[in-house]
Amino acid sequence: MSFNSLDEIRAFCRDLPRGKARAAKTASERQAKLTKPPGSLGRLEELATWMAYWQGREIPSLARVTVCVFAGNHGVVTRGVSAYPQAVTKQMVANFARGGAAINQLAKLAGADLRVVPIDLDRPTGDITAAPAMNADEFLAAVDIGYRTVPSDSDLLAVGEMGIGNTTVASAVCAALLGGGARWVGRGTGVDDAGLRRKCAAVEAALCRHGAILADPLAVAASLGGRELAAIAGATLAARHHKIPMLLDGFVATAAIVPLSRIDLAILDHCRAAHVAAEAGHRLLLRELGLDPLFDLGMRLGEASGAAVAILLLRASLACHAGMATFADAGISGGNE
Amino acid sequence: MSFNSLDEIRAFCRDLPRGKARAAKTASERQAKLTKPPGSLGRLEELATWMAYWQGREIPSLARVTVCVFAGNHGVVTRGVSAYPQAVTKQMVANFARGGAAINQLAKLAGADLRVVPIDLDRPTGDITAAPAMNADEFLAAVDIGYRTVPSDSDLLAVGEMGIGNTTVASAVCAALLGGGARWVGRGTGVDDAGLRRKCAAVEAALCRHGAILADPLAVAASLGGRELAAIAGATLAARHHKIPMLLDGFVATAAIVPLSRIDLAILDHCRAAHVAAEAGHRLLLRELGLDPLFDLGMRLGEASGAAVAILLLRASLACHAGMATFADAGISGGNE
Repeated sequence: MSFNSLDEIRAFCRDLPRGKARAAKTASERQAKLTKPPGSLGRLEELATWMAYWQGREIPSLARVTVCVFAGNHGVVTRGVSAYPQAVTKQMVANFARGGAAINQLAKLAGADLRVVPIDLDRPTGDITAAPAMNADEFLAAVDIGYRTVPSDSDLLAVGEMGIGNTTVASAVCAALLGGGARWVGRGTGVDDAGLRRKCAAVEAALCRHGAILADPLAVAASLGGRELAAIAGATLAARHHKIPMLLDGFVATAAIVPLSRIDLAILDHCRAAHVAAEAGHRLLLRELGLDPLFDLGMRLGEASGAAVAILLLRASLACHAGMATFADAGISGGNE
Repeated sequence: MSFNSLDEIRAFCRDLPRGKARAAKTASERQAKLTKPPGSLGRLEELATWMAYWQGREIPSLARVTVCVFAGNHGVVTRGVSAYPQAVTKQMVANFARGGAAINQLAKLAGADLRVVPIDLDRPTGDITAAPAMNADEFLAAVDIGYRTVPSDSDLLAVGEMGIGNTTVASAVCAALLGGGARWVGRGTGVDDAGLRRKCAAVEAALCRHGAILADPLAVAASLGGRELAAIAGATLAARHHKIPMLLDGFVATAAIVPLSRIDLAILDHCRAAHVAAEAGHRLLLRELGLDPLFDLGMRLGEASGAAVAILLLRASLACHAGMATFADAGISGGNE
C-alpha cells in the first residue's frame, strides 16, 4: 500500500475490514466454561475476546508481537519547548540500536520484535509556529513508512515514538482537532514553568498560523504534526487493514491517531489504550476517543514503553484463555447449586 | 518459627527487621542516571527501589519468586452465603494440582514457583454466627503453616487464597476491626440479592456473637476469620522476618492482614497491593491500610491471580532498572542544556 494523495487515505478509510464476530462469540463462550466464576478475571476476559475478534480465531495467538517505535525531529524545538536538545533524538535512536533504552528491556521481556524507524532526523519538520511541519508529499512519505513497517502477519502491534519536541506538536494537533488550546500542553520530558509557557505560546501561534486548514484532519496532521506521528497513523491503518489488534502508548502516540478519529472514530476499533500517561492531556484525550486504558503507573517516557508493559497483560489474558481447564474437564460443581 | 500463643505473635511483631536504606538510595541514584527523563517510568522506578530496599542490594533479583495459595473451608457456608457449594474448595485444589486453574497459567507466565496449601478442608471452621471459627490452637497451627510455606530465600512473595465462603469471614474481620458492618460485604463469586442479604445478616450476627473479643485483633482473626486467612498472616510475618518484598492479592488476602495492621501498621511495610479487586470493599480496605494498588482490571477471582499479574509489572520494573544504559554509557546529552 502506498498513498499518493490525502484523498487516497480518505478513500482507504472508507473501506476497512472488520474482525470476526463468530470468533469473538466462541471465545466469550469459552470464557464462560473456564474454572472461575463468570467475569472474575475482569478485563483479562474481555481482552481475550477482543484479540479473538480481530485475529478471527477462538484462541488467539501472541506468537508474533511487533513493537514499532518511530522517531522524528521537529522545527518547533527552536522555540525552546523541550528540556533536552534536538541531538537527543538521534542519540536515543543509537541507544535503541545498542539495546540500552527502556523499550529494549521491555520489548525483550514481552517477547516482542522491536522495530525502530528513524525518519529523516537530519531534516526536522518546519517550525509549526511559522510554517507547515510537512508538505503533503513529506506527510504521505512518512505515512507510508509507518504502513510498511508493520509485518502483515503480526498477531499484535504496539506503537510508540521518540522525538525531542513532539509533545508540543502532539498538543497542537489535539488543540486543532478537539479544541481547547492550552489544556493539551504538559511538561513533556520535564520542562520548567518558563518552558511550559513557551510550549503554550507555540501551540497558540501554530493554531493562528494554520487557521485556514483546521477543519481538515489530514491537513492538520501534515501541517501541525510530525513524521513519527504520521508514521504511527500509517501503522494504525496497516494494522487495521491486516486485522491486527493494536496497543497505543502514551500522549504523543494517541495524538497521532486523532486525525484518523476525526475522519471516522470506527477506524480505531482495533486499538486499545495501553495506559494513561502522566503527561497532562492524555487522560482527557483518551476520554475524547472513548478509550479505556488498562493501567496507570504514572509513566511518561514514550518509546512504546507503556504499550510494551501492556503486552504482558495480554499475555496474562491469553495464558488464562488458552490454558485453563473447563468446569467439565475439572469435574467442578457449578455455581448457584 | 513456631508460635505457641497469641502473645508470642505479638512479641514477634514488636521486633521485626527493616530493609537497607543504603540499597534503596543507590537504587534510586541509579534510576536517575538511566537513559530516560527522571521519573518518566513512574511507579516502575519506585518499585525497583522498594525491591532494592527489602533485598538489600542496588539491583534486586527476581530469580526466585514464590506464589502461595492457601485454601480453607468455612462453617458459615451453611448460612447460604456463597453461590458455590463447599465441595468446590477441594475441587479447585485438585484443579490447582492438575494445573488447570487461572493461577497455574499466571504463575507459569510470571516465572513463579506455585505452592498450594490446603488446610484441613475436611474440618471446616466453626460457623462464625454461632461459634468461634477457630480456637487459639487451631489458629496458631494455621499461622504456622503459612509461616513455614515461605521459602526463606525467596526474592518475592505473592499470596492468595481459595475458600468457598471466605469473602463472608473476610468481611466480618474487616467490620470487627475497622467498623462499618455492611460496607465490607460484596457479591464474592457472584451471589444474587438474596445471597447478599444473607451475607450481611451473617456478618451482623457474627459481630453480635463475638462482641466481647472485638478489641483484640488476633482474637478477631481466630474467632471471625479462617484458616487460609490465618496462613496468609503467618506468611506475611515470615516474609517480613526474611525481608522478602510481598504482593497482596484481592479482598480476602488483604483482609487477612488487617489484624496485623491493627497491632502495628508498620508490620506491613514490606507489602504492596497488587491490584484493586472488583469485590466491594477492597478499594476502601486498601485506603484504610494506606496501600496504593498497581492496577485495576476488575478482577475478583482470588487464587493470588491479581498478585501474579503484578509480578509481571515487577519484572518490567527490574528489566529497566537492571538493563538500561546510563546517560554516560550512551553518550546522551543531559536535560535542560
